[in-house]
Amino acid sequence: MEQLFSKLDAVFDEMVNIRQHLHQHPELSFKEEKTAAYIANFHKELGHDVRTNVGGNGVLAYLKGEKPGPTVAIRADFDALPIHEQTDVPFKSVYDGVMHACGHDGHTAALLGLAKVLNGMNSEIEGTIVFLHQHAEELPPGGAISMIEDGCLDDVDVIFGTHLQAQMPLGEIGYRSGALQAAPDRFDITIQGEGGHGAYPHNTKDSIVIGGQLINNLQQIVSRRVDPLDSAVVSICNFEAKNSYNVIADTAELTGTVRTFKEETRTFIEKEIEEVIKGTCQVSGANYQYTYTRGYPTLVNHEEETTFAAEAAQNVPGVEKVTETPPIMGGEDYAFYLQYVKGTFFFTGAKNPEWEKAYPHHHPKFDIDERALLTAAKVLGKTALLYMEEHSSDSLNEAG
Amino acid sequence: MEQLFSKLDAVFDEMVNIRQHLHQHPELSFKEEKTAAYIANFHKELGHDVRTNVGGNGVLAYLKGEKPGPTVAIRADFDALPIHEQTDVPFKSVYDGVMHACGHDGHTAALLGLAKVLNGMNSEIEGTIVFLHQHAEELPPGGAISMIEDGCLDDVDVIFGTHLQAQMPLGEIGYRSGALQAAPDRFDITIQGEGGHGAYPHNTKDSIVIGGQLINNLQQIVSRRVDPLDSAVVSICNFEAKNSYNVIADTAELTGTVRTFKEETRTFIEKEIEEVIKGTCQVSGANYQYTYTRGYPTLVNHEEETTFAAEAAQNVPGVEKVTETPPIMGGEDYAFYLQYVKGTFFFTGAKNPEWEKAYPHHHPKFDIDERALLTAAKVLGKTALLYMEEHSSDSLNEAG
Amino acid sequence: MEQLFSKLDAVFDEMVNIRQHLHQHPELSFKEEKTAAYIANFHKELGHDVRTNVGGNGVLAYLKGEKPGPTVAIRADFDALPIHEQTDVPFKSVYDGVMHACGHDGHTAALLGLAKVLNGMNSEIEGTIVFLHQHAEELPPGGAISMIEDGCLDDVDVIFGTHLQAQMPLGEIGYRSGALQAAPDRFDITIQGEGGHGAYPHNTKDSIVIGGQLINNLQQIVSRRVDPLDSAVVSICNFEAKNSYNVIADTAELTGTVRTFKEETRTFIEKEIEEVIKGTCQVSGANYQYTYTRGYPTLVNHEEETTFAAEAAQNVPGVEKVTETPPIMGGEDYAFYLQYVKGTFFFTGAKNPEWEKAYPHHHPKFDIDERALLTAAKVLGKTALLYMEEHSSDSLNEAG
Amino acid sequence: MEQLFSKLDAVFDEMVNIRQHLHQHPELSFKEEKTAAYIANFHKELGHDVRTNVGGNGVLAYLKGEKPGPTVAIRADFDALPIHEQTDVPFKSVYDGVMHACGHDGHTAALLGLAKVLNGMNSEIEGTIVFLHQHAEELPPGGAISMIEDGCLDDVDVIFGTHLQAQMPLGEIGYRSGALQAAPDRFDITIQGEGGHGAYPHNTKDSIVIGGQLINNLQQIVSRRVDPLDSAVVSICNFEAKNSYNVIADTAELTGTVRTFKEETRTFIEKEIEEVIKGTCQVSGANYQYTYTRGYPTLVNHEEETTFAAEAAQNVPGVEKVTETPPIMGGEDYAFYLQYVKGTFFFTGAKNPEWEKAYPHHHPKFDIDERALLTAAKVLGKTALLYMEEHSSDSLNEAG
Repeated sequence: MEQLFSKLDAVFDEMVNIRQHLHQHPELSFKEEKTAAYIANFHKELGHDVRTNVGGNGVLAYLKGEKPGPTVAIRADFDALPIHEQTDVPFKSVYDGVMHACGHDGHTAALLGLAKVLNGMNSEIEGTIVFLHQHAEELPPGGAISMIEDGCLDDVDVIFGTHLQAQMPLGEIGYRSGALQAAPDRFDITIQGEGGHGAYPHNTKDSIVIGGQLINNLQQIVSRRVDPLDSAVVSICNFEAKNSYNVIADTAELTGTVRTFKEETRTFIEKEIEEVIKGTCQVSGANYQYTYTRGYPTLVNHEEETTFAAEAAQNVPGVEKVTETPPIMGGEDYAFYLQYVKGTFFFTGAKNPEWEKAYPHHHPKFDIDERALLTAAKVLGKTALLYMEEHSSDSLNEAG
Repeated sequence: MEQLFSKLDAVFDEMVNIRQHLHQHPELSFKEEKTAAYIANFHKELGHDVRTNVGGNGVLAYLKGEKPGPTVAIRADFDALPIHEQTDVPFKSVYDGVMHACGHDGHTAALLGLAKVLNGMNSEIEGTIVFLHQHAEELPPGGAISMIEDGCLDDVDVIFGTHLQAQMPLGEIGYRSGALQAAPDRFDITIQGEGGHGAYPHNTKDSIVIGGQLINNLQQIVSRRVDPLDSAVVSICNFEAKNSYNVIADTAELTGTVRTFKEETRTFIEKEIEEVIKGTCQVSGANYQYTYTRGYPTLVNHEEETTFAAEAAQNVPGVEKVTETPPIMGGEDYAFYLQYVKGTFFFTGAKNPEWEKAYPHHHPKFDIDERALLTAAKVLGKTALLYMEEHSSDSLNEAG
Repeated sequence: MEQLFSKLDAVFDEMVNIRQHLHQHPELSFKEEKTAAYIANFHKELGHDVRTNVGGNGVLAYLKGEKPGPTVAIRADFDALPIHEQTDVPFKSVYDGVMHACGHDGHTAALLGLAKVLNGMNSEIEGTIVFLHQHAEELPPGGAISMIEDGCLDDVDVIFGTHLQAQMPLGEIGYRSGALQAAPDRFDITIQGEGGHGAYPHNTKDSIVIGGQLINNLQQIVSRRVDPLDSAVVSICNFEAKNSYNVIADTAELTGTVRTFKEETRTFIEKEIEEVIKGTCQVSGANYQYTYTRGYPTLVNHEEETTFAAEAAQNVPGVEKVTETPPIMGGEDYAFYLQYVKGTFFFTGAKNPEWEKAYPHHHPKFDIDERALLTAAKVLGKTALLYMEEHSSDSLNEAG
Repeated sequence: MEQLFSKLDAVFDEMVNIRQHLHQHPELSFKEEKTAAYIANFHKELGHDVRTNVGGNGVLAYLKGEKPGPTVAIRADFDALPIHEQTDVPFKSVYDGVMHACGHDGHTAALLGLAKVLNGMNSEIEGTIVFLHQHAEELPPGGAISMIEDGCLDDVDVIFGTHLQAQMPLGEIGYRSGALQAAPDRFDITIQGEGGHGAYPHNTKDSIVIGGQLINNLQQIVSRRVDPLDSAVVSICNFEAKNSYNVIADTAELTGTVRTFKEETRTFIEKEIEEVIKGTCQVSGANYQYTYTRGYPTLVNHEEETTFAAEAAQNVPGVEKVTETPPIMGGEDYAFYLQYVKGTFFFTGAKNPEWEKAYPHHHPKFDIDERALLTAAKVLGKTALLYMEEHSSDSLNEAG
C-alpha cells in the first residue's frame, strides 16, 4: 500500500486542479453534459474502457487488473446545486446560481486522481475496478437508479464510496453498519375549500384556516404516533395560498418532506399523513388531493463490507481517527446500489482544523479542506485493493 | 293610576320585608317548597283562589275583577342559586351555599305587594289577574314548561313580567320587541381514545391531544361559519381528563354551552359541532359521543305588547327613562310563555345610583336597590290595568 | 315630481346606452381617464360648470337652480374591477381583465340621465345640485377622501347616493339609519423564523408551523374576544411561504382583512391581532412585522336624512317596497362624505325578477336589470328636489 | 459455577413460594414494612448481618466470603403498585387495589434464593456480597437515593441488578452499555385565565381555549425542536378545568411527563416547555405557574461491567440468547446507584413461550413465567462470583 499512498501524494496537486476546475464550472443535476465529457475524456486518456451516457449523463470507466479477481466499483457523484456561490475562492463558480456546494467536485477529483494512480499499478490489481461516475445525486429520482437499470452494476461484486463532510474534522473517517442515511420522501397536498369575499366567511370554506389546522395536526405524527426510539421527520416546507387581501382562499397548497430509516415507519407515516388530512378536511367539509412520492431508499450499509472498510481505513496516512458515526436524516441515492450489491458508504472529514466554524453543505459559503481529497482517495484505494486481494480466490473458486 | 301608585307606596315596607325574608331563606330550583307555601299562604290570606303544586312547586293565584275583561298573567320566579353568599347584609342567607343572587326574591316580593294592592282595587278591575309564581327558572328544563303543561296559561290572554337588572340604573326600564334573550343550550362530548403509559405515546390515542385540537377547531364555528351579522356563542366550559402524571388519557369529557337567537343558527351550530368533532376524532382514529340538549327557547317579545308596556312605563313615578335595550346572550324560561300567549318581558333597573360598581348577577356579592321593587310593581300594575281597560271590550265582543 | 318622473322615463334609453358604453370600456381604479373625460364632456354639453381632475380623476358638475336654496350633492362612482368578464352581453368589456362587475357603470349612467333631466327643470330648482362623479371607489385609499380634500364638499349641505344591488329585487329600496357598511381594513404580517434543511427541523424556527398556530390563534379574536352582540370579521386571505419541498421556511407572509362597525371594536381588534402575533411568535422565539392599514371608515347614515330619503322613496313609480335593510360587512368610501356633511346612502334593487339567481358583485358573470337605473335616478332626483324645497328657507334664514 | 447452578435449581421451589407469598401480600411504595421485615428475617435466619430501615424501608444483608476480594452489591426492589389485580392466579393479591404488577416480587424471591445458595458457598467467595433490597422503586423520589444517602453503597465496588421483562421471551437476557432507561420527569402547569359566564366570553380569558392551544403548541417540542436522532417524549397526561356547563374556566391544570436520555435534551425541554407556556399565555394575556420536577436520572450502564455481565450470561443454563437490547423510555431509580459505583442493569426475559401475548407491566393482568426467577438468580450469581474472582487481586493490590 505504500506505493499507492506515495503515488497518490504525487498526484495531489492534479486532484486539486481538477476539483477547482469542476468547482468553477458546476452543472445542475441531469444537465452535467460538460462535466461528464471531462470525466470520460480523462479516463480515455488513461486508456480505460469508457461507457458514457449511462442512464443519462453517467460515466463508467473500467480498469482490468492483470490478475483475476473480483469486480469492485468505486463511486463518485458529480452534479452541482442551484445555489449562488458566495465564497471568495479564486475558482469560484462562473455560472450564476449554480454551485458545487456539497463537495461532489471533490468526490470526482479524488476518484480521477485515484484512477490515474491505479492505472499505473495495473500489474498488481487482482480483478476489475469500475470507476462509477454518477450524475444527478441531488435531484430525485437521482442518477443511481437509472445507471443501475443501464447496467452499471453488471458483474460488480462490491461497491465503495464516500462523502466529504465539511463539519467533520480533516483526518476523521466515519463508518456505520446498517442505516446511515434516511429515506427522503416528498408529499404534496392540495386543500380544496371554497373561496369568497373576505367579509363573508360564512359563505366559504376557508382553505387557509383548514391549512392552519393541518399544519398543527401533522405535528402529532412525530410527537405522538412514531415510537420515540425511532427517528422520523415530517416537515411542511411550502405553503401557498396566494390571494388578494380581501378574498378568502379557495385552495391551499402544501409541500413537504418525510425522513425515516425503517420501511414500516415510512409506510406508516405515508398512511398517517392521509388520515390527518382526511379528518382535518372533514372538519370543514373540504376536499383534498394527496400524493406521496418516495425519494431514495434508506442507505443501509452492509455489515461485513463496512467493517472491512473501517479496518482498511486504519493506519492510512492522514487518517487520525476512524469512528462509528451516528446516522443522518439527509438522503443519498447511493442507497440504491446497496440494494443490488454488497458494499458500504463512509464519511471523510473535510473540515480544516483552523476553521472555527464550517458552513453546512448546501450553504452558499460551503467549502472543504482539499487535503480531504487525498484522504478519501487513499482510503478508497486501499479498501479496493485489499478487498480484491482478499477475495481474489473467491472468484477463482466461483470460476472453478 | 294615581290610586295604584299611592297604594303601592304604602306597601313598600312590606315588600321589602318579604324580599328580605325570602332572601334570608333561599331555596334551590325544584326544591322551593317553603317559598311556595309562603307565597300560597300570602294569597290565601288575601282571599285569592290559589292553586299550588302547579307543574312542580309553582303557585297560581287568581284575582277576579268585578267587571268583565281579559285575563292577564303577571309572572315572578322564586328559586335561588347554589352560591355561597358573601354580602354583609343583615338578612343574609341562613343556608350555606344557597343564595338569592339573581333577584328572584325581589320579583316575588314586588308581585306579592302588587297582589295586595290590586286585591283592594277589585271593583275597578276589568277582567282577571293571574299571579303566576314560577319555580325553577335557573335550572333547565325550568319550571315554566311544566307549569304551562299543568294549565297555568289556560284562559290567559296576555302575560307580563320583568327582571330586575343590577347593572341597569334604578329608574330605567328597558324594553325590546323581538328577540330579547338567547336560547341557552348545552352540549356534552366524550372523546374516546386509547390510554396507556406516558412514555409510550405511539401505543395510544391521546385523548388530551385530540381534545386540544377539538377546542381549537370549535372556535371556527363562530369565527368562520356563522354570519358575522348574527350573534352566537360556543363556549367549552368544562374539560376533564383526570389521570396520573404518567398515564395517557383514555377519555376526555367536554361540556359547554351554545347561545343563539335564530332557530336556523341554533340548528346549524348543533350540526356543525358534530361535524367538527367527527373530523377531529377521525384525525386520530378516535371515537366520540355527543349530545346536544336544548335549553330554553329564545325569548321573543311580541311587538304590540312590548310597545304597549313601554308606553305604559312612561310617566310612572320613579321611572326616569324608558329605552330600547339590546338583546342579551343569557337565557330565560319566560320564553316558553311567549310561545303560547302574547306578552312581553322587560328589564327594571336596580342599581343604586350611589354604587360605583354593581356586582353581576350570580355573583356571591350580588345585591339590588330595593326601590326597584316598587318601580317594577308600579310598571307591571299599570301595564296590567291599562291593558285590561283597553281590551275589556274585546272579550265582550268575543263573548258576544 | 310627475314632471321629473316622465322626463326621466323619456331619457331611459339614453341612460341604457351610456351604461352599455361605459360597460364596454371599463377602466381600473385610479386609471379612469377616458371615463372621466366622457362624464365631463356630457356635463359640458349640458352647459354645467365642470371641474375635472378633482382629487385625481374625479369630476364635479354644478347645476345652479334659479331659486335660492341649499346645495345638494348626488354621488356616483365610475371605476371598474380587475376581473375578466364572462357574460354574453353584446356590450361586454372590450378590455381583457377589466370589468364593470359592481354596477358603477349603472350609477354613472343614472346620474348623467338625471343631470340631463334636472338641467331642463332649472327654473324650479331651489338651490344648487352638485353631480359628484367619484373615481376609484374599489381600491383603498379610494377617490372620496382625495376629492374631499380637493374641495368637492365645499358649500355642500347634504349628500345622497345609492348602490345598485344585484341580489335585491328590482323595485326594492333599502335604507338604514346608522351603520350601513363596515369599515374594511387590511393587515400584513411577516413571521421571521429561521430556515434550514427539511431533515433538520431542530436547527430552525419553522415559520410555517408558527404560521399555522397563528391562523388558529387568530380565530379566537372573533370567537372569544369580541362581544357576540357586535359584528366583526378577521379573515386571513393570503398565506405565502414558498420554498423547495425540503427547505424549512425562513419567513411566512400573511395578509388579511378586518371588518367592524364600531370604532372601539376596530381599535380593539387592531391591538388584539398584535397580542396574538406577539405571543405566538414568542412560543418559538421568532420575530414578526405587523402593519394594520385602515381602509374606509364605517359608513354611518345620518338619521334625519335617511328617514327623509326613505320617505321620499315611497310612491316613486317603479318602487314597490321601501325597507330597512340590515347592515353589510362590505366597505364603501362614501363613508368619508358622511363624516363631513349630512346625508345618506341607500340600496336600489337591481335583480331582474325573472332571474332565478343573481351573480354576486365582483363575479365575472355579474349583471343588473337596467330598469334599476331609472328607479335610482327617480329616487335620487325626488329626494334631492324635495330636500331643496323643504330646506330652501333654511338657507334664506342663514343668509338673513 | 456448576455448583451454583445446581444449588439454585434445588431452591427453585422455595423461590416460587417466596414470590407467591409476596405476590399475595403486596405493599405500596414507602409502606412496605411487612415485606421489609420478611426479607430481613430471611437473611437473619441465614446468619447474615442485616441492616433494616435503610433510607426508609430498605434492607441490607451482608455475606462475607472467606477469601478477600471486592464488595459486590446485588439489588432487588420490593414495592408494589396501586392497581387492582385482575388475574386468576391462586396467590392473587389479598389487598384490594394493591398488586405486584411489575415483577418486584420475583426480583426479591430470586435474590433471597440466591442469598441462601451463596450462603452455603461461603468458603469459595472472594470478597463481600451486599444483598441490596430496595423499597419504593415505583414512586419518585424512590428508595434508591435515600438508601445511598444512608450508606448502602459504602465500600461497594460494583453493583448488578436485573428486571424481569414480561414481554421478553423466557431464556433471553438483554444488555446495553450506556443509556438503558430514560429519565422520567414530571411537569405541572396552571393556566390562570379569568372565568365568567359562558354567554359572555368577551369578558373572560378562557383557560380552556388557552389550554387547547398549549396542548397543540407543546407537540412542537418533539416534532420540531428535538434532534430527530435523539429520543424524547412530552406527554400531557392530565387536564382538568372542572366547571358548570355554562361557566367559563378560570383556571386549567395540566400535568404530564417528559422522558429523555441526554442531560442536555432534558434541560432543553424543561426550558422549552416554559417558553411555549409563556408565549401561549401571552396570546390571551393570561398568567401561569409551571413546575418541573426531575424524577430519576437516565440509567446509564457502565461499559466494562455491562460487557462483563453479558459475557457471564453466556452458557448459563436456561439462557438461550444474550442480546443487545434497545433502550426503553420507562424510568428506573437503579440509575442512582450507577452514578456512585460501577455496574450494570440488564433485562431477564419472563414471557412464557406458550403465551400468545403477555400483558404489559403495570397491567391488572400482568404475570410472569416463574422460571425466569431461576434464570435471573443464575445470571446474577454467576456474574457476582466471576467478578469477585477476577477482581480479588485488585483489592489485594489496593490493600497493599
